[in-house]
Amino acid sequence: MKSRNLIQPEDFSIEEINQLLELAQKIIDNPSKYSLACEGKLLATLFFEPSTRTRLSFESAMFRLGGKVVGFSDSNSSSTTKGESLEDTVRTVSNYVDLIAIRHPKEGGASIASDYSEAPVINAGDGGNQHPTQTLADLLTIKSLKGSLDNHTVGLCGDLKYGRTVHSLVKTLSKYKNIKFIFISPDELKMPEYVKDALDDSSYIETDNLENVMGDLDILYMTRVQSERFSDMDEYERLKGCYHLNKEKLKAAKDDMLIMHPLPRNGELDADVDSDKRAVYFKQTKFGMYARMALIMMLLDDEINE
Amino acid sequence: MKSRNLIQPEDFSIEEINQLLELAQKIIDNPSKYSLACEGKLLATLFFEPSTRTRLSFESAMFRLGGKVVGFSDSNSSSTTKGESLEDTVRTVSNYVDLIAIRHPKEGGASIASDYSEAPVINAGDGGNQHPTQTLADLLTIKSLKGSLDNHTVGLCGDLKYGRTVHSLVKTLSKYKNIKFIFISPDELKMPEYVKDALDDSSYIETDNLENVMGDLDILYMTRVQSERFSDMDEYERLKGCYHLNKEKLKAAKDDMLIMHPLPRNGELDADVDSDKRAVYFKQTKFGMYARMALIMMLLDDEINE
Amino acid sequence: MKSRNLIQPEDFSIEEINQLLELAQKIIDNPSKYSLACEGKLLATLFFEPSTRTRLSFESAMFRLGGKVVGFSDSNSSSTTKGESLEDTVRTVSNYVDLIAIRHPKEGGASIASDYSEAPVINAGDGGNQHPTQTLADLLTIKSLKGSLDNHTVGLCGDLKYGRTVHSLVKTLSKYKNIKFIFISPDELKMPEYVKDALDDSSYIETDNLENVMGDLDILYMTRVQSERFSDMDEYERLKGCYHLNKEKLKAAKDDMLIMHPLPRNGELDADVDSDKRAVYFKQTKFGMYARMALIMMLLDDEINE
Repeated sequence: MKSRNLIQPEDFSIEEINQLLELAQKIIDNPSKYSLACEGKLLATLFFEPSTRTRLSFESAMFRLGGKVVGFSDSNSSSTTKGESLEDTVRTVSNYVDLIAIRHPKEGGASIASDYSEAPVINAGDGGNQHPTQTLADLLTIKSLKGSLDNHTVGLCGDLKYGRTVHSLVKTLSKYKNIKFIFISPDELKMPEYVKDALDDSSYIETDNLENVMGDLDILYMTRVQSERFSDMDEYERLKGCYHLNKEKLKAAKDDMLIMHPLPRNGELDADVDSDKRAVYFKQTKFGMYARMALIMMLLDDEINE
Repeated sequence: MKSRNLIQPEDFSIEEINQLLELAQKIIDNPSKYSLACEGKLLATLFFEPSTRTRLSFESAMFRLGGKVVGFSDSNSSSTTKGESLEDTVRTVSNYVDLIAIRHPKEGGASIASDYSEAPVINAGDGGNQHPTQTLADLLTIKSLKGSLDNHTVGLCGDLKYGRTVHSLVKTLSKYKNIKFIFISPDELKMPEYVKDALDDSSYIETDNLENVMGDLDILYMTRVQSERFSDMDEYERLKGCYHLNKEKLKAAKDDMLIMHPLPRNGELDADVDSDKRAVYFKQTKFGMYARMALIMMLLDDEINE
Repeated sequence: MKSRNLIQPEDFSIEEINQLLELAQKIIDNPSKYSLACEGKLLATLFFEPSTRTRLSFESAMFRLGGKVVGFSDSNSSSTTKGESLEDTVRTVSNYVDLIAIRHPKEGGASIASDYSEAPVINAGDGGNQHPTQTLADLLTIKSLKGSLDNHTVGLCGDLKYGRTVHSLVKTLSKYKNIKFIFISPDELKMPEYVKDALDDSSYIETDNLENVMGDLDILYMTRVQSERFSDMDEYERLKGCYHLNKEKLKAAKDDMLIMHPLPRNGELDADVDSDKRAVYFKQTKFGMYARMALIMMLLDDEINE
């Protein structure tokens, strides 16, 4: 039987996502109960490009479940320098371990890995394509801090064109009840048509002005404007400043609005925002670890796989 | 008392190799019985050059025995950039751990390490010299899948001149009963005289034609033809193709022939061979992990050392 | 409440240092008693520059207490290549783990980390500034092998100007009873005034001649003369040889003198010294691991923190 994988957010149904979020919440509420849940199990973290936050989050998650970890943190330390193919690396390593988390610079890298692996595969990011565990982290943050995934006005701000995490967050959140999206971006970085096409027309509005909509938001999801997306550096410098959030702008926001960000940030969040109680982007990284704990448990649990 | 090491295959007698293979088979048959066999023990993997497969195999082996691992995966992450000698690195690290697995780009690196270590040392490859745990992996694969190491016709194909793993496999297998070798290589890459000198003249033949002998083989051990061995790239391109194995050529082979390869491969095994039930080179990597588990147990077990 | 950190040696009082050394000695005497002392706890080793010895010492220490470790061994494998700040890396990682050991190339790096961390922070070296766990290793070596930290004549030899480890060793040892220092260095590399200003004038003498004072010493602490400290390479070559220790010079030393060195060495200790029973610099690395075990226990122990 093919093992269960998480390559793109759509691989899990809403029911399964809800199940995962509930398990994650149980772990948060009573971590010691799960401290041996994966004893004797081995995770491989195959990071063909470096990503400290994501890698350490996976490894911490596995350790906090009593499991162990092998792996590499960049392709220089891997056999690929000897010309070994991704397929053969995965076939070999999946003979040693019970689960693989892979990050690969090429789109589709994780999908190829899952075709050849003997063990379940988690996509920990493949180029500009997908990063489904970030979406799980985002959902858990909202559910745990707001109590529910229904009935929110969600502002997404910054680079909505290239940001893979906002695309899958929107797709997933749109399946919950009474979600309104406000897409806040410059014209050059608007949400792609294919994402909007999957939404009800009445469920979103678009604007280029953050301040005008600030007071309406239950959640403000900021994103990094990445210089590598621009061929024109002047354009980059101009746009980078547009969606810079600071304490002053936050005066118009609701008292219980959540300020989220997938990190790393790049100037779009002023340091004076960090101490605001609404800023939850560091908590979000901790929720990411708990979401990965629940995910690891689900993929390793035969009951659920079959 | 000097601790016990595995630097070259000859460091273990045939009796000890048999004992190790029997222990490995017991681990395969009942892994959970051994899941705490090395609890509280610490392995250092000192990889002065990268080798994902070998490193992860050692680390997985130690974890599956309940032990733990420290180490580095290439010399850039080590103190050697500060000018520390191999001897001092080993003397220091062997004070922290119970066992060392070392890979070093220079021939003799592992042997020097064992002279200065307070803990047992395993050679995980030293330049073009020795790679004794690959030999253990090969022997375990044959014994486990064929039931015995006696009475086989073993074809070794490709680069027999530089391939360190085939030299030590031949040396060790020749000590079992009724083994016939067929050395299949171009003239430029023939098995060295010193290996053949240790064999009975009647126990081997040499040929440059794989297809002619295919039907005689119980085991076909393919090897990688490494471009770095050639000064003339045209010569390399010509020879690389000679011993390319594919489904068509396999029609002449016995139904229960084992197709082995130490990996990584470099074009000598067609992708269509992978799905053939006789292709066991990925299983071989798993047997490698079990062989290393047995080795670790033997080197850490005082009863056996003394 | 702010968590407890060890950023500079002064962060611990002499009473706390004594308490730590006593705990370390208990661990040395009965390691198995402490093999689960930190079970379920997670250490992050954030090494923004490579240092095998120090990193493996921390990781071995944590493993020998039953804990687990995540981390990176150089900044190439970290998210800093994406422009993430030290502050954000620490804020994120401290959400995953219970304790952080950080090495950073810039002076003050560890101090900044402790300002932003949710978990206790240990300075594992920050540029030319501080390396407090080396001082703990040195103190434990002396106390364990000499029985006491009082009543010693301590020679410090070599680069006393730039060697951060000797500065903090002198500062700390000076608080014990009846310690006499002999500072042995060329004029160019003399002990800085600010270190001497904190000492009684009668408690130290300075000389450039090692042989003249050899017979007086209970402890000889050698240091590495680092080429990177010199702009004039001829000057470096001349001074490097001055304080080269060999078996011949040791004839004048006491029978129970301890020869110490923080390692790595750079020609100042002849290989023929290694076999001398007074040479304890490799034992010193093992004492370093035990000192770090005691430190980890103290920082993770709420009873002590509060």
